[in-house]
Amino acid sequence: MQQLTIIKVGGKIVEEPESLTAFLKDLAVIAGDKILIHGGGRSATAMAEKLGLETKMTDGRRITDAEMLKVVTMVYAGLVNKNIVAQLQKLGIDAIGLTGADMNLILSQKRPVKEIDYGFVGDVRQVNAPALLELLKQNYLPVIAPLTHDGNGNLLNTNADTIAAEVAKSLAFDCNVRLIYCFEKQGVLMNETDEGSLIPVLDFELFQQYKSEGIIQGGMIPKLENAFQAIASGVKEVIITRASDVKAGKGTFIR
Amino acid sequence: MQQLTIIKVGGKIVEEPESLTAFLKDLAVIAGDKILIHGGGRSATAMAEKLGLETKMTDGRRITDAEMLKVVTMVYAGLVNKNIVAQLQKLGIDAIGLTGADMNLILSQKRPVKEIDYGFVGDVRQVNAPALLELLKQNYLPVIAPLTHDGNGNLLNTNADTIAAEVAKSLAFDCNVRLIYCFEKQGVLMNETDEGSLIPVLDFELFQQYKSEGIIQGGMIPKLENAFQAIASGVKEVIITRASDVKAGKGTFIR
Repeated sequence: MQQLTIIKVGGKIVEEPESLTAFLKDLAVIAGDKILIHGGGRSATAMAEKLGLETKMTDGRRITDAEMLKVVTMVYAGLVNKNIVAQLQKLGIDAIGLTGADMNLILSQKRPVKEIDYGFVGDVRQVNAPALLELLKQNYLPVIAPLTHDGNGNLLNTNADTIAAEVAKSLAFDCNVRLIYCFEKQGVLMNETDEGSLIPVLDFELFQQYKSEGIIQGGMIPKLENAFQAIASGVKEVIITRASDVKAGKGTFIR
Repeated sequence: MQQLTIIKVGGKIVEEPESLTAFLKDLAVIAGDKILIHGGGRSATAMAEKLGLETKMTDGRRITDAEMLKVVTMVYAGLVNKNIVAQLQKLGIDAIGLTGADMNLILSQKRPVKEIDYGFVGDVRQVNAPALLELLKQNYLPVIAPLTHDGNGNLLNTNADTIAAEVAKSLAFDCNVRLIYCFEKQGVLMNETDEGSLIPVLDFELFQQYKSEGIIQGGMIPKLENAFQAIASGVKEVIITRASDVKAGKGTFIR
């Protein structure tokens, strides 16, 4: 089976020209097929502010009204995505930038309103794995912005970590998938302020224990839940690591 | 040879939800393979204004400094392109939104500074016809935003009429190409204020005559020059028509 590395990188890395260039050079040397999923939240928040729109977050998720949807569509699918693609082309990597609407790649459902109305936020229903496999076969590197569509003409803002996990799961039958979440720290830490406290390997049991003990908390919980769901669906390996370590094979290994 | 219709539609049509929906429904019934190239200048100008940036135009071309390049990237590749794609998906048409950087589709060169410094504006050097043919073979409808890249990591703002003509020329060897320019009027008029004065057929000789007589002037001149270049390069037919007449086969026929 073909080796496939799916990499999710957060906004901070891809929004600064220097860190983006360094990151993409590291990405270029990873062997085999690759898919990149990116964020862009910081740029979206900055752009919203310039346009006089207030950013409201609940549990780390952006409340996306019609005006905010325009902002994230501009920033994620336009500014961030196309800059990554142009930089990859410079490195000789034939990238193609996509949202979930393009090629009907990721169909989602507007999140139902319960206690919180998240607005135009989508929960993934289906990933078009054949379309992605065909792009990989033709040696393209798909670069996916965190937007999906509902099939009824609406774009929906969708968490990039979740997209990465869903894309990984959808391809686990056809490829040996390794999913790498890049973020600011070197991996999952026992103590958030101590970079020496890396947890090298995490299984579901240990995750549950650390969660109940409050060692793992906040935004790391949904990230790890995505990771364990991916493993349960056949993804071979999930790695949580620092963006600058993406080619080094370091970080926390999820099994 | 396969029939291919390449349609260029201006900003005004695709920026308003009602006219966009009507236009895409008309597009849907045109038989054979299709490629859509869109503008978005009005939205870009409005967005620039919201961000406190002044829009400077010379001969109908936007002066594109670094900040304006960000605006057009957001608006063309993000907002306008992805809304068109999502609307086409709703109509059951498997669209894929692209810039010239994606798939290395359109390579361009930053326009040299002579009397005027246009900034980050690109003149088309090469269209990746094989990549477009492969997408058409797979039954995708490519939707192209008016941005190209220089292969050195820079996106460049590029006139959508020119992109349409260059794409048409690049595919003229492999397909029977018909190029349709949609705009506000029913075609090229003898008298701009009289919709009854349509010129039904225009050849290069007549164009030169009307141009010297001042009957054809302004923004219509570069549009027609693009059209005649396309014809000279093997494009079978160029039609200039009103967007609402796109499926009717009316307008000015360029031969």
